[in-house]
Amino acid sequence: MSAHTFKANNPALKSFVEVKKDSDFPIQNLPFGIFSTSSDSTQDARVGVRIGAFVVDLAELSELNLLNDLDFDHSVFYENVLNPFIELGQTNWRATREKVSELLQIGSDLEKQLKDKNDKVLFPIEEVTMHMPVQVGDYTDFYSSIEHATNVGKMFRPDGDALLPNWKHIPVGYHGRASSIVVSGTDIHRPKGQIKPNDADSPIFSPCRLLDFELEMAFIVGKSTSLGDSVSIEEAENHIFGMVVFNDWSARDIQKWEYVPLGPFLGKSFASSISPWVVMLDALEPFRVASPEQDPKVLDYLKYTKKHNFNINLEVDLIPQNEEATTISKSNFKYLYWNMAQQLTHHTVNGCNINVGDMCASGTISGKDENSYGSMLELSWGGKKTLTLKNGEERKFIQDNDTIVMRGFCQNENVRIGFGEVSGKILPAK
Amino acid sequence: MSAHTFKANNPALKSFVEVKKDSDFPIQNLPFGIFSTSSDSTQDARVGVRIGAFVVDLAELSELNLLNDLDFDHSVFYENVLNPFIELGQTNWRATREKVSELLQIGSDLEKQLKDKNDKVLFPIEEVTMHMPVQVGDYTDFYSSIEHATNVGKMFRPDGDALLPNWKHIPVGYHGRASSIVVSGTDIHRPKGQIKPNDADSPIFSPCRLLDFELEMAFIVGKSTSLGDSVSIEEAENHIFGMVVFNDWSARDIQKWEYVPLGPFLGKSFASSISPWVVMLDALEPFRVASPEQDPKVLDYLKYTKKHNFNINLEVDLIPQNEEATTISKSNFKYLYWNMAQQLTHHTVNGCNINVGDMCASGTISGKDENSYGSMLELSWGGKKTLTLKNGEERKFIQDNDTIVMRGFCQNENVRIGFGEVSGKILPAK
Repeated sequence: MSAHTFKANNPALKSFVEVKKDSDFPIQNLPFGIFSTSSDSTQDARVGVRIGAFVVDLAELSELNLLNDLDFDHSVFYENVLNPFIELGQTNWRATREKVSELLQIGSDLEKQLKDKNDKVLFPIEEVTMHMPVQVGDYTDFYSSIEHATNVGKMFRPDGDALLPNWKHIPVGYHGRASSIVVSGTDIHRPKGQIKPNDADSPIFSPCRLLDFELEMAFIVGKSTSLGDSVSIEEAENHIFGMVVFNDWSARDIQKWEYVPLGPFLGKSFASSISPWVVMLDALEPFRVASPEQDPKVLDYLKYTKKHNFNINLEVDLIPQNEEATTISKSNFKYLYWNMAQQLTHHTVNGCNINVGDMCASGTISGKDENSYGSMLELSWGGKKTLTLKNGEERKFIQDNDTIVMRGFCQNENVRIGFGEVSGKILPAK
Repeated sequence: MSAHTFKANNPALKSFVEVKKDSDFPIQNLPFGIFSTSSDSTQDARVGVRIGAFVVDLAELSELNLLNDLDFDHSVFYENVLNPFIELGQTNWRATREKVSELLQIGSDLEKQLKDKNDKVLFPIEEVTMHMPVQVGDYTDFYSSIEHATNVGKMFRPDGDALLPNWKHIPVGYHGRASSIVVSGTDIHRPKGQIKPNDADSPIFSPCRLLDFELEMAFIVGKSTSLGDSVSIEEAENHIFGMVVFNDWSARDIQKWEYVPLGPFLGKSFASSISPWVVMLDALEPFRVASPEQDPKVLDYLKYTKKHNFNINLEVDLIPQNEEATTISKSNFKYLYWNMAQQLTHHTVNGCNINVGDMCASGTISGKDENSYGSMLELSWGGKKTLTLKNGEERKFIQDNDTIVMRGFCQNENVRIGFGEVSGKILPAK
């Protein structure tokens, strides 16, 4: 599927809605989300599309008979999660994005109608509340950055090989906790739990002392499978609706004590935060790039021929309370050794069924440079180094009342397609 | 809460519905499930209660105005999962079980009404299809049998300590795959995936060669919590609706190659099977027993004073195609070192939120004797021993077309409270 297949991707398109030059949300993007306004109850949360600093109310567009071309039951636009809309299938997501693109172009029926009447179709972003875009059935976290896996290996196994024997053969992943995935802006209490300090004989109960973020992205499953079925690598991307930026909050000390032999559990399950706007894979087409070469060669079911990676700039800010932000990491989604098609294919190769709304995160996305590392664990090299913030404060891990903001955006000479941000503030332990 | 608190537990109660002496489902049990009849579409699946060899249709009882004492919206009985019913809360589950108990007693209004009219309230079990009783949000698998963990440790780390350092301090657990939990009677295809034979330099792609079951039980969460909240050990059982027998199918060779460092993934996610009837914790009251002593002492948040274990006999049959069953394991839920209250308390101590319908499995339940081991891995001691079946066939792991049946039941001099069975047949790889 080339970038030119989608009319909505045409960089020449202009909207009658003002879009600032550095906006993540030009008319070529049009991500989907769930919003409500201050006059709504939470039950009234419904489907919106983002353009510039506005949210387009798809339920209202339907009321105004502007979506009559879309040949499906428009009640999906009144739902408070995207799942029913996504379940309509790729043809209908694509038709919806194309139709909304038409309506937002200069000279459209919508522009005329808005001039005549004061219909409530466009809401300024500062007047809406964003909600979880999907109900997440199952959440899987991969471990697909070779730089991250190597850094962790060097720190935890200084005398052994940095990468474990399976790492270059399998897109290693594990099941995560779906219930505690929250939308950007949700405050997180510092988790408590069992930790075993190095100088202690027995574990103690304590608030986490080594609280971390993990810079990740996640894709949202757009097409279900039945138990026993597998998805080929050629078909894999057709099972993906879109992507969000994902902060996999991590309690390093809880994780360290608990994770052998069955993997991370309470060190991760207290919260994960996501950006509210789901950018369709279609909108990212102009930013496809090749993945890093895989050596040794992977088994046949994981072999691919097309470009399955995307050039998405990623940034992390740390903001102490009432202070300015310091950007502490700049990374890129394109560094990932294992791509999404490989992840999804591997995930289903054993017959595991996937459902619309399932979320698969990438694992921490680190680059080669020290300032591209995607976690405090790596940035402070296990607490051995200190990060100095703009205001002179220092950090090795996250302190109470720190806010972590992650951003993702694609940029070329023609267009910027962004994800907005995922933000989360750490409150003291309860 | 003592056994005598619940009128429905009175061993003297008798039903007008015939219940055979060895039935798992006397009037003192009354587990909940989701059923449909051959004339129904799947959408018509609804809430039923099991007694003897019959299913009581709760939607129909409501239609007949026999549940008017139950002061909540009876539409929950028409749902095709138990979640909305469970969300009504413990007071209402209890009231429902007590009311159904009254109606099934000799001389009840229901008995009279059924004599007068031919109402379709009771369906013979062989005429119904059982469905998944709940929509599972998140599924967690614990590892709470000291005998199982010790056996695995001895096999996998023959030169080290059998138990890892954290095992006696933490009820070790991990997130599992919720989407692939299926109800008893669902056939399972042998999974395929990456395995690395001992004599190979690189992994190969192959159908699983070391297919196993794990004899477990699972509890179903009955009361949700909010993100950031924890459940105390005194409150933990109030968050549990009931229990089922759980077969955690395992592909040992896939698991072995993939599980370091992030835990089991595709080795487990191809399927887990559960028994269809959810036995309320209330019905198990007469079978409370103390858990094994825990030494070293656990941290304060995991300390308990009441009896939190249950004396539940467990059995596993292996049935080759068209052959008779051989019982290959007899174990007991009471062996578990970590009890359900500790599991749930630990699960939420970091603020992880739980939801109605979440499922927490125990991990393989092995006893001390070799014939009480809860997996082929242990019964065949990693493939070094051979099990001989009644028909003379031998097994080290599960072969194609083998059926595994697990049963659970409590029995004292007065009453038998059982779970029925969870059955699953392994079909050849697709």
